[in-house]
Amino acid sequence: MIVAVDAAGGDYYPQNPVKGAIEAVEENNELTVILVGPEDIIKEELANHEYDKKRVLIHDAPQVIGMDESPGQAVKTKQQSSIVVGVGLHKAGKCDAFVSAGNTGALLAASMFILGKLPGVLRPTIAAYYPTFKGFRLLVDAGANLEIKPETALQFAKMGSVFCEQILDISNPKVGLLNVGEEEAKGTELLKEVHKELKSLDSFVGNLEGKDIFPGKADVYVCDGMVGNIVLKFGESIPDMLEKMIGMAVQKMELSSEEVQRTQKILKTALSSFNYENVGGIPFLGVNGVSVVGHGGSSPLAIKNMIKSAVQTVEQDVNGKIVASLN
Amino acid sequence: MIVAVDAAGGDYYPQNPVKGAIEAVEENNELTVILVGPEDIIKEELANHEYDKKRVLIHDAPQVIGMDESPGQAVKTKQQSSIVVGVGLHKAGKCDAFVSAGNTGALLAASMFILGKLPGVLRPTIAAYYPTFKGFRLLVDAGANLEIKPETALQFAKMGSVFCEQILDISNPKVGLLNVGEEEAKGTELLKEVHKELKSLDSFVGNLEGKDIFPGKADVYVCDGMVGNIVLKFGESIPDMLEKMIGMAVQKMELSSEEVQRTQKILKTALSSFNYENVGGIPFLGVNGVSVVGHGGSSPLAIKNMIKSAVQTVEQDVNGKIVASLN
Repeated sequence: MIVAVDAAGGDYYPQNPVKGAIEAVEENNELTVILVGPEDIIKEELANHEYDKKRVLIHDAPQVIGMDESPGQAVKTKQQSSIVVGVGLHKAGKCDAFVSAGNTGALLAASMFILGKLPGVLRPTIAAYYPTFKGFRLLVDAGANLEIKPETALQFAKMGSVFCEQILDISNPKVGLLNVGEEEAKGTELLKEVHKELKSLDSFVGNLEGKDIFPGKADVYVCDGMVGNIVLKFGESIPDMLEKMIGMAVQKMELSSEEVQRTQKILKTALSSFNYENVGGIPFLGVNGVSVVGHGGSSPLAIKNMIKSAVQTVEQDVNGKIVASLN
Repeated sequence: MIVAVDAAGGDYYPQNPVKGAIEAVEENNELTVILVGPEDIIKEELANHEYDKKRVLIHDAPQVIGMDESPGQAVKTKQQSSIVVGVGLHKAGKCDAFVSAGNTGALLAASMFILGKLPGVLRPTIAAYYPTFKGFRLLVDAGANLEIKPETALQFAKMGSVFCEQILDISNPKVGLLNVGEEEAKGTELLKEVHKELKSLDSFVGNLEGKDIFPGKADVYVCDGMVGNIVLKFGESIPDMLEKMIGMAVQKMELSSEEVQRTQKILKTALSSFNYENVGGIPFLGVNGVSVVGHGGSSPLAIKNMIKSAVQTVEQDVNGKIVASLN
């Protein structure tokens, strides 16, 4: 099992990708990683670590795509970037998967362009984890497809369900449609059509509302990428917001530093299921390959878990099962 | 100042509307309320209270529109319902405003049908409060217009700004467009058009993302009703979610009951700015009258604050200022 890792992606490269990759290799004897990026900076970073030189390799890619660069433009003009080179290695069969905490749009564009779509897939999609009382569940689409059609939405539901079953270990995942009300007749004309289409699934539990997200009323939440992206980013801002609000409350209440510490510990425990580091990232679903995207701010732990997620996706043949589910 | 109050709306009628109305009258010497609903149940409830009989009146409306009834149908068939009768009283000049914690769709339909639109308004809108570090700000539209057009979005921004200035006391409120990224070229073709239209406002601060909601980067967040409704309901579910998650953490950590109490107190203080009871409700913006909608679960305090909000809207001539802002 060989996974290529973008060593020049995310907000903290090369430190975090390098450290995460080394940790992934330490945990899995069968795994080899290829660090893709400017060779000099990777070597310099590796010098700070002890690692198995046979299983932590380097592949030079001198260009770097910035987090804010326009994806299409960047992929076209930076053919020697870690993203384009990494996805190319995967396409050429030199590795089983590619993971990156870099520019999401550029990774998606490179993956679509270089790897192409799985047979039968209309549009690949970005799924995202969102935390519920039951653990992490899937929100799909999370921003790749700002507009959806009934037939693409049905495919998102099916692809998300395969991922849920294989990687999150949920048997018969329930599919819900994010909408403004529970009744079948709610929403725009388009959402009513999507609802009809999703009814062909035995696992469809109907429309669900914003308030149903945390309770985990579905395992796969279908929505367009506009709603998905806004809800996702809003949700991700909750722990930070809370920390600040609790900080303000603590000041107002003039607590002792001991009491403050204890409260922070309780909060941290309570919000541990919000911790994206523990799940790392999700592969683009519908792409003919395994291309895993993670947060720009990914920690070494998050990178390690992204690599793990890539390995699992390959081992469980998620793509083969997606193709089968669409037929 | 006379405000009619729906005594048969919301999840806890007649208790909460009756109690809230009595408290509003106690706080404001200039105010008279008319409780609208089935006379017998209102009288029975009023018997539990001391109140000024000259300023707490009853207007019989024997029918009740349920929270889950189809709005259009309910308004058509239940002409003697508290909502239709209450809005009718306002139209007939018997009161200055109508407030209800009942079926939002029915109240909107009745308001549109009976009161009509203010001159120059393309589409009335439902705005919602959302909590930020800076206090409550506005999200508009929150579900009345699932689809928007550039010209309606511009009006929402203007109407929301007037409300922000007059009722939330924010001078020169900033307008933001909820989108998937900050850059001008982000989003659907429609959102790009909306962005162009909003640029005609000096107060426009550009696109904002889901993560920018809590920090309060804008005072008026413009979005379509689909996004607004989902984000609103998702956000409203946060305090409940947190309470449960902290409860789970507390159990896991085997804390003393003292520590549990302290934590709950801190959490309550921290989340006090999430408390919708303190703001109550917002009038439909663009309707030719003052028709205030609140949560179904409104407490007496929330009802009292809805009435206060209605009084302020009348006193500050929000509608006159809306008409002026659209010219």
